[in-house]
Amino acid sequence: MSDPRLTALARSLPETVPFVGAEVQERQRGRPFAARIGANESGFGPSPAAVAAMQDAATDVWMYGDSASWDLRIALSAKLGIEAEAIAIGAGIDGILNDLVRLFASDGSAVVTSDGAYPTFAYHVAAHGGRLETVPYRDDFEDPEALVAKAAETGARLVYHANPDNPMGTWHEPETIARMLDALPKDALLVLDEAYAEFAPGGQSLPLDTTDRRLIRLRTFSKAYGLAGLRVGYAIAPPDIIRAFDKVRDHFGIPRISQAAALAALGDEAHLARVIGQVESARERIGRIATDNGLLALPSATNFVAVDCREDGAFSRRLVQALAAQDVFVRMPFRAPQDRCIRVSTAPDEVLDVFADALPVALSEARKG
Amino acid sequence: MSDPRLTALARSLPETVPFVGAEVQERQRGRPFAARIGANESGFGPSPAAVAAMQDAATDVWMYGDSASWDLRIALSAKLGIEAEAIAIGAGIDGILNDLVRLFASDGSAVVTSDGAYPTFAYHVAAHGGRLETVPYRDDFEDPEALVAKAAETGARLVYHANPDNPMGTWHEPETIARMLDALPKDALLVLDEAYAEFAPGGQSLPLDTTDRRLIRLRTFSKAYGLAGLRVGYAIAPPDIIRAFDKVRDHFGIPRISQAAALAALGDEAHLARVIGQVESARERIGRIATDNGLLALPSATNFVAVDCREDGAFSRRLVQALAAQDVFVRMPFRAPQDRCIRVSTAPDEVLDVFADALPVALSEARKG
Repeated sequence: MSDPRLTALARSLPETVPFVGAEVQERQRGRPFAARIGANESGFGPSPAAVAAMQDAATDVWMYGDSASWDLRIALSAKLGIEAEAIAIGAGIDGILNDLVRLFASDGSAVVTSDGAYPTFAYHVAAHGGRLETVPYRDDFEDPEALVAKAAETGARLVYHANPDNPMGTWHEPETIARMLDALPKDALLVLDEAYAEFAPGGQSLPLDTTDRRLIRLRTFSKAYGLAGLRVGYAIAPPDIIRAFDKVRDHFGIPRISQAAALAALGDEAHLARVIGQVESARERIGRIATDNGLLALPSATNFVAVDCREDGAFSRRLVQALAAQDVFVRMPFRAPQDRCIRVSTAPDEVLDVFADALPVALSEARKG
Repeated sequence: MSDPRLTALARSLPETVPFVGAEVQERQRGRPFAARIGANESGFGPSPAAVAAMQDAATDVWMYGDSASWDLRIALSAKLGIEAEAIAIGAGIDGILNDLVRLFASDGSAVVTSDGAYPTFAYHVAAHGGRLETVPYRDDFEDPEALVAKAAETGARLVYHANPDNPMGTWHEPETIARMLDALPKDALLVLDEAYAEFAPGGQSLPLDTTDRRLIRLRTFSKAYGLAGLRVGYAIAPPDIIRAFDKVRDHFGIPRISQAAALAALGDEAHLARVIGQVESARERIGRIATDNGLLALPSATNFVAVDCREDGAFSRRLVQALAAQDVFVRMPFRAPQDRCIRVSTAPDEVLDVFADALPVALSEARKG
């Protein structure tokens, strides 16, 4: 029973976790995973320059980090060709989503997302007392027209859309996002989650326009840059929207060592290009492994591949468990019909070797029902 | 003007920062500080074991941190002799206060603190729409009886009390806190901020009792452990209160490298003991510097010293600015009569040398009015 001193909203919330972490599962299993390909982390690792920056910064961590993350914002500003005042640094996209939902929807406003899209967004909406409205995927793609139509119907304050998408790995061209913006109700803000933007075909995305008040874009150092364990993400929006984070954020919340590493990672464009190439090769390899086992890899614009198992969600769940029994950590979409898939992160060849060996065993186990 | 899509609460909030960071001031000045003794950081630095742990963990940061911070909680559990389920890890005490205020007071409930106590707590209360009620300090001490009386009068949900206190450095004996608990209204939760507990006389604090539902205690690796730039704090309370954080927290928000460093720091008790000794010596030295300049150092149970300048707040403000002009970063209490003081963090001798040289110059500058 919840403590009666909690707010009514807090009492109503489950003690939930959007994802069960790899380490939590390892403790439950009593055994580590041999292939950690379930959380879309970058097994290709961070830039050596970022590693060196962390090692240098290690003796400086007695100091709080810069509350303005200024050096990082200036570097992003130079790289992206936008003003630093249009950039907010947050504790990963998760941390930014938390503050964003709080700022725009904690008064019970409607918020639109796709049913089965990023669960952590839905978690923050529930936990801030927002009203979640969903539309279905359409052929494994998020459906921009339906998202916008639902926003108009519900008077939504926020519309969440990930492009490229997680968990399906699908992607809309920049022109589609531009049309979505043109159709967006004027009281809504489009939250464009671009966590996987670096992996989109040709690195294409909507041109940056920091005067566009219809849009806030979220990016991260957790995926292509391989710094998930440091918690650094950023938001791009018109400066007055960016300043709104200053109303509620933990001003000293971005670790000093994380700021130093992200800054160094940003400067190592060769490493980023190498990782993008490695991810492409690994996506192809996952595709071959899928085909070899009678499964179907969906096209991916991310660092993971949704593999269609051509069965139902119950089968996928059995397969995820059977893979875990083979020491392979993967996840799967939560909603039908996307839950006919498992989601496999790209990784170095030796890790995908483990997956390739485990998959036929796990499939035969899962087929036993 | 605030974006009309923000919640009414968010629109009403200033784009404020509880403290202006040292780096922000350095950019404004165009010059670094030579003595960084304004934020109660530990210039004595982190444990070498923590530095080594960070350097080792640097290559692992492509992985998200353990969402349960389990190894760290187990180590704290063993050290403190309480169950791991009574411990929550958060992004520093600031991050924990954010979630705590959200859980207990974001419905507009009253919250009690001392006028001039930790501003970040008041910031979170305002930003979550809680109702802040304050009582004055009493002879530079927080006033437990007044806090409890105000809680009864206002029907407060949370009562914040820092022991040892920041910004005054004063301290109440465990017996006083026990009496405070006994007088606490039953609908209130005492938030006991023990950020500086390691520096209290003889390390004394109220015995840990994780069945006591009247109390949540907050501690940190930012002060005695010298890891402010990593953002790791923890809360101690009955397990069901601890589980409430799982309703709202960023589950993957504690950096992997921060967990590793805190774990290693916790294991280096010799370093901790050394720092506590260094802090004691530095407090005495700050006291001598104060006396040499006709000022009065207040007794301190923390890693900083409130130095009474025997003038008013306007004088202290001029002195803080004049010290900054001498490249010395200090802060001062925000409220009268505590603002007759400046607050000076302990630091190694070579840093206090800079302070000792700067103080007479700055005092004569401040006395010009």
